[in-house]
Amino acid sequence: MERLKQFITKEGTVINEQVLKVDTFLNHAIHPQLMKEIGEEFSRRFGQDGITKILTLESSGIAPALMTSLSLDCELVFARKRKSITMTDHLYTSSVHSFTKNQVSDISVSKTLLQKNERVLIIDDFLANGQAALGLIDLVNQAEASVVGLGIVIEKSFQPGREILEKKGFRVESLARISNLTNGKVTFLEPIKQSY
Amino acid sequence: MERLKQFITKEGTVINEQVLKVDTFLNHAIHPQLMKEIGEEFSRRFGQDGITKILTLESSGIAPALMTSLSLDCELVFARKRKSITMTDHLYTSSVHSFTKNQVSDISVSKTLLQKNERVLIIDDFLANGQAALGLIDLVNQAEASVVGLGIVIEKSFQPGREILEKKGFRVESLARISNLTNGKVTFLEPIKQSY
Repeated sequence: MERLKQFITKEGTVINEQVLKVDTFLNHAIHPQLMKEIGEEFSRRFGQDGITKILTLESSGIAPALMTSLSLDCELVFARKRKSITMTDHLYTSSVHSFTKNQVSDISVSKTLLQKNERVLIIDDFLANGQAALGLIDLVNQAEASVVGLGIVIEKSFQPGREILEKKGFRVESLARISNLTNGKVTFLEPIKQSY
Repeated sequence: MERLKQFITKEGTVINEQVLKVDTFLNHAIHPQLMKEIGEEFSRRFGQDGITKILTLESSGIAPALMTSLSLDCELVFARKRKSITMTDHLYTSSVHSFTKNQVSDISVSKTLLQKNERVLIIDDFLANGQAALGLIDLVNQAEASVVGLGIVIEKSFQPGREILEKKGFRVESLARISNLTNGKVTFLEPIKQSY
């Protein structure tokens, strides 16, 4: 997705060879028009797949997932990293290991909000080592629903997430794929086509 | 906003006299079309006020705030409850006391994302005791920006949030105002006009 890559090039900050900061349009500030276009692009890619529900993870997944659910006209649920005071239901819970934070955290979703036989599209802002994606897939499996695919805004293709997911047979659609962050610079697998 | 009140009546669960659960459309699952209508309604109410930025708090504020920012065509930033690994900037930070959780937590926003002289609309999912709203106002004040008003999806009018904010001179626009949650039932300040 060219416009997303242009945003990354113009506004992203390479913190180190592993970490890209996109706080001005995706992770902290959010660019609403870009999110709308991201939702439309995921909708184009998954529009024929009979998606009944979108599952994402708070907080940074919510904006692209909401715009996708609006475009696909399907329901949206976000897994929580902490238990809410109103989460009195039984929960599906999975553990996610974060390499960057070097910690394990639980993610969960109310059982009533993920039904058997649903066709689920997982949306997330980043794909790196695939651990958050695997946690979300685990929640869907616990519900006996199907993962139709994963829609990722930014894939760090130099990390093993995509390979892990594809080896398990999952379809991964990433809107921007980054081959490396060396020399303080973002390099995409496919170069940008237009000027910003 | 009639449609919101209908959603609350049909899908909300009264946990006790203080707590209303709206996990099926606002706080955990999100109803995208309702969020769009909420954004349009806030846009109607604040469309003439020269808003340059919307500020909300992760996670449940993000969906209504995103739809409002899309409708008003302005920027959006969400304050974080925890520090992100890419939040390397200096931060504005404020402490928020949660009565329901009986704990104090810090909320913060990168200084680069909230500029002096901006005209800020604060959006949040709930207004109860007003503590989260006061924390967000504090962040705006630290940035020497102006709070134009507060847009609240659900106001628990039997709690003191609105009174506290209005006494300080802030404009509060709530889309649904609940007068009480007694007898396991939601009662609005203004009764619902249409049937669901």
